[in-house]
Amino acid sequence: MSKVFFSVTMSLDGFIAPEWRSDEQWIQQWMGLQDYALHQKFLRENLKIGEGGETGVDNTILESTFRRTGVSIMGKRMFDAGEHRWPEEAPFHSPVFVLTHQPRAPWERPGGTVFHFVNDGIESALRQARSVARGKDIRIAGGAHTIRQYLQAGLVDEAHIALAPVLLGEGIRLFDRIDPQTLTLAITEAVHSPRVTHLRYAVTRR
Amino acid sequence: MSKVFFSVTMSLDGFIAPEWRSDEQWIQQWMGLQDYALHQKFLRENLKIGEGGETGVDNTILESTFRRTGVSIMGKRMFDAGEHRWPEEAPFHSPVFVLTHQPRAPWERPGGTVFHFVNDGIESALRQARSVARGKDIRIAGGAHTIRQYLQAGLVDEAHIALAPVLLGEGIRLFDRIDPQTLTLAITEAVHSPRVTHLRYAVTRR
Repeated sequence: MSKVFFSVTMSLDGFIAPEWRSDEQWIQQWMGLQDYALHQKFLRENLKIGEGGETGVDNTILESTFRRTGVSIMGKRMFDAGEHRWPEEAPFHSPVFVLTHQPRAPWERPGGTVFHFVNDGIESALRQARSVARGKDIRIAGGAHTIRQYLQAGLVDEAHIALAPVLLGEGIRLFDRIDPQTLTLAITEAVHSPRVTHLRYAVTRR
Repeated sequence: MSKVFFSVTMSLDGFIAPEWRSDEQWIQQWMGLQDYALHQKFLRENLKIGEGGETGVDNTILESTFRRTGVSIMGKRMFDAGEHRWPEEAPFHSPVFVLTHQPRAPWERPGGTVFHFVNDGIESALRQARSVARGKDIRIAGGAHTIRQYLQAGLVDEAHIALAPVLLGEGIRLFDRIDPQTLTLAITEAVHSPRVTHLRYAVTRR
């Protein structure tokens, strides 16, 4: 059966996105947080950022995360932020279910990404995602609020955290207002490149 | 020259100590956080908790952390909490400088631990620690406030974080109110046992 996972970059002080103070500062901090990923060949090609890039452990993990993903689920704010920034050939190349209160017809992009808009909650989105996963895994893409909802509901099987050696000081925390009694985490992998540390956890509901 | 380092256990949500609500709950959460250490042969013997214990990677790291430490520095609250809990043969077996506003004569314990009380600040304590380190390293033992003071002042060379796969929800954060512009961290080691992930960073002042 498809596994449900998330894969995020977290600062050493626990943030997966900076606090917004100005566009310029936000983007600078975001680039600092995502620094390792922006250097990788796979991500650069998939986001059409540019040629070249590294091909070590970071690249292997980014690429295998992409390959295992049969379908993604994301919150409306993540979709809104990406809608005008992703290249026309959106980087998912598979179905994406967007959690929103606004009805909207599916939006198909060149390259195989189709956004479906789900109005009846996280469990419905997960059911719909399962039905199209075709044996691959289901990625809870973000943002933090959406990941926390799935975590808190005990619906996540695996967490991949790329722990970046940066401090943001303020921002959006991955683990915030999660009842610590509801989840058990077990480390399954820890590897590092010079840029980042990849931590993988099996997550089970208590 | 002696390196200045700290070595703490941190929950996945960033806490190095639980929030106090009741003694019972605090101790339960503290034991959950320190679970990996409490199973290790070296720690059990050094704290006189009991016989037996594991001898794998966690034990090796705990023991080597002890062996490299020529002298420790701690805050007054950590000392107060330990004063009546450490065994008579306190677990440091080397000089300990305690940051406090209260003058007090040195306090010598059986087994080689001598507590010295420093009233004139963190830089003075570090100078005094250097003078007795005899080629070994200087451990900023804790608590969080003391570690943050040394970090913020750019006086820490190395951080060892044992990242425990637990969530505390609330508590005392290691990285809190640290200006992220002042420090550069570089990962140098990431290894995990089934119980915990050891992360080691080189810390430099920007």
